[in-house]
Amino acid sequence: MRIKTVIERTVKVDSKVRNARVDLGQMTVSAVAVVTDVHGDGGSITGFAFNSFGRYGCGGPLRDRFIPRLLALEPADLLDPAGTNVDPGRILAALLTREKAAGHAERSMALGTLELALWDVVAKVERRPLYQVLADRFGGGAATLPGDIPTYAAGGFYGNADEVPAVGATVAGWRDAGFVDAKIKAGGGDLGLDCRRIEAARAAQPPGGRLALDLSCAFDAASGVQFAQAVKPYDPWFLEEPCDPLDFEGYHAVAQTGCRIAGGENLFAAREFDNFLRYGRLGPGVVLEPDPALAYGVTGLREIVAVAQAHGLSKAAIYPHGGNMMSLHIVAGLGLAGLEAYPGQFGIFGGFSREIDIRDGRASLPSAPGIGFEEQPALFALFDEMARSA
Amino acid sequence: MRIKTVIERTVKVDSKVRNARVDLGQMTVSAVAVVTDVHGDGGSITGFAFNSFGRYGCGGPLRDRFIPRLLALEPADLLDPAGTNVDPGRILAALLTREKAAGHAERSMALGTLELALWDVVAKVERRPLYQVLADRFGGGAATLPGDIPTYAAGGFYGNADEVPAVGATVAGWRDAGFVDAKIKAGGGDLGLDCRRIEAARAAQPPGGRLALDLSCAFDAASGVQFAQAVKPYDPWFLEEPCDPLDFEGYHAVAQTGCRIAGGENLFAAREFDNFLRYGRLGPGVVLEPDPALAYGVTGLREIVAVAQAHGLSKAAIYPHGGNMMSLHIVAGLGLAGLEAYPGQFGIFGGFSREIDIRDGRASLPSAPGIGFEEQPALFALFDEMARSA
Repeated sequence: MRIKTVIERTVKVDSKVRNARVDLGQMTVSAVAVVTDVHGDGGSITGFAFNSFGRYGCGGPLRDRFIPRLLALEPADLLDPAGTNVDPGRILAALLTREKAAGHAERSMALGTLELALWDVVAKVERRPLYQVLADRFGGGAATLPGDIPTYAAGGFYGNADEVPAVGATVAGWRDAGFVDAKIKAGGGDLGLDCRRIEAARAAQPPGGRLALDLSCAFDAASGVQFAQAVKPYDPWFLEEPCDPLDFEGYHAVAQTGCRIAGGENLFAAREFDNFLRYGRLGPGVVLEPDPALAYGVTGLREIVAVAQAHGLSKAAIYPHGGNMMSLHIVAGLGLAGLEAYPGQFGIFGGFSREIDIRDGRASLPSAPGIGFEEQPALFALFDEMARSA
Repeated sequence: MRIKTVIERTVKVDSKVRNARVDLGQMTVSAVAVVTDVHGDGGSITGFAFNSFGRYGCGGPLRDRFIPRLLALEPADLLDPAGTNVDPGRILAALLTREKAAGHAERSMALGTLELALWDVVAKVERRPLYQVLADRFGGGAATLPGDIPTYAAGGFYGNADEVPAVGATVAGWRDAGFVDAKIKAGGGDLGLDCRRIEAARAAQPPGGRLALDLSCAFDAASGVQFAQAVKPYDPWFLEEPCDPLDFEGYHAVAQTGCRIAGGENLFAAREFDNFLRYGRLGPGVVLEPDPALAYGVTGLREIVAVAQAHGLSKAAIYPHGGNMMSLHIVAGLGLAGLEAYPGQFGIFGGFSREIDIRDGRASLPSAPGIGFEEQPALFALFDEMARSA
């Protein structure tokens, strides 16, 4: 088995939204296609992935060093012991030689994306959905696989006008689409506006629905505590990223208000999560939100799970970021808590494949082999064009 | 005043060396040229910089987002209030909008390099060496400028054979070239070999010369403590990067041996230095080694100095990484402790300009306007070709 080529494409995302800190209107995403010499149903088996959302494409390190290194690997670094499939964990380790310590984000996104595309290959060679492969290798096996996955809807970005009714309408749309729990942006600076947005969202949720607030790193310790105390009467499910992800003292201060804290989409390696938990002292209720594509892929996620467990947390603390098929498979396969979804956001990179139904706040599981981007037609058109250009 | 264009070139570095962890044989560097519409002696005034050494080129984020954003800036974000020169700090702030928090390395290298090239422009417009500009704006002014800068020689990488005599010969060469203090690689795994290398280096140093050991993040807490205790009898000047830069507990453990600790070339923002000092608890003797080109440039360095001072350290604790003209100007202009040098290493990207003399362990200061890459002929040939291609 051989990797014939790897294609990277940096694509502009169709997004006109902003959170408390950042306008995402120029966002890009890296899409990759790993083309093998193994014949499958539709030609050469090809693995696909993209680098999630929010941190821009990472075509530079992919094209400049990781794709050339991948194509130069010897079979011992590329394949599993039987030589019949690629071995993403082994490949990741080989690609990380010649790399200095720390500075993870510069490469964790490129390598996470590549590693996930390699997992797409693995599962397609096995002709099974990726989550089943992951459950066999790293989870509890087929017997423990869930039938569906707790999934909450996220979005509710800041707009320009009429945003209070717009947030209500958005959350009502999620409710009608089968979601129960929800997460909206907050912390944009106008507390009165935030309260009206929260009330509009709350009014549109189904009974029992929880509402989380994504604060997008807007606060320091003092202002974060102030905000948390102001919104605590609304009983938020959790406050996501109240402070800069490296401001561990800030996180600790906000956690002391008694509000549940979430974070992790801007932490990129197990060691960063270790510091976040060690120094943040966030209590047993903390929610961790690593993004597999941004943080060394399945291999990185498994290391993050191990760190969480070493700090006394269970897999039920981990809700991966991203709202895409990659995170869905990893949650199901590794037995993590649940998932976010971004209905109708981020153009072709948002949402799940057409196989996925949302009902009572849970996402069904797919049957297509691999990650199943083939069942996400608008996105697959891009991937297919990339593969054909190989 | 207008920026006409910015050229980036990713260049392979001529390097066949390895440290305790990493083979640097495929290293690349990003060189940038910022071409303005201001007429100078040799045509349009053009600023040059490169992204130091060790973390690979960063052409992706430069070409994909930061150069386009720079070229799209309005004058209010580009120029100083008088409108007669570029304002690197203001530009950096403008380029950082649309960026999420944390994950610094992915962009700090690209922006640090760009920011330094903009400082080259600033000083060339003022027709002065950069260090004088920095001293006026941020240092103690011309009256406090030093005549020369404490500079130690660094290198002594691992080789394949005869490396003990080779280390001795290297250090003897540094001594003959005017250096007094030195730093060699250690921590490669064979303690006996390291001791013989240290002894060979010590024997070749001039009287009073100090010897530092660069451990290249080779150890965890326990093995780092063991190594520190083993080499303590050699009275090392400092132990550089004993552990992973994010393993603050490891750094703390090694510091408890009483050996002086150094670190920082793999920390990329002031907040990372804040955590390093806060949680590492490294004592008043710690040496900080930020690399300006990798860590948001002069602006980033000034923020790191402020963090160090908030932790009770003085500027005398800061020896920037890199061994190049960019760090030399910043040390002189901001009044930092001193500098490393890499005589004969890293091809055209190593060493100082021909204006610089080394005598009694101190580097003289240059007189060329800007950073003065024009006086570093092999490197300037690259920059000049880039500028002409604009």
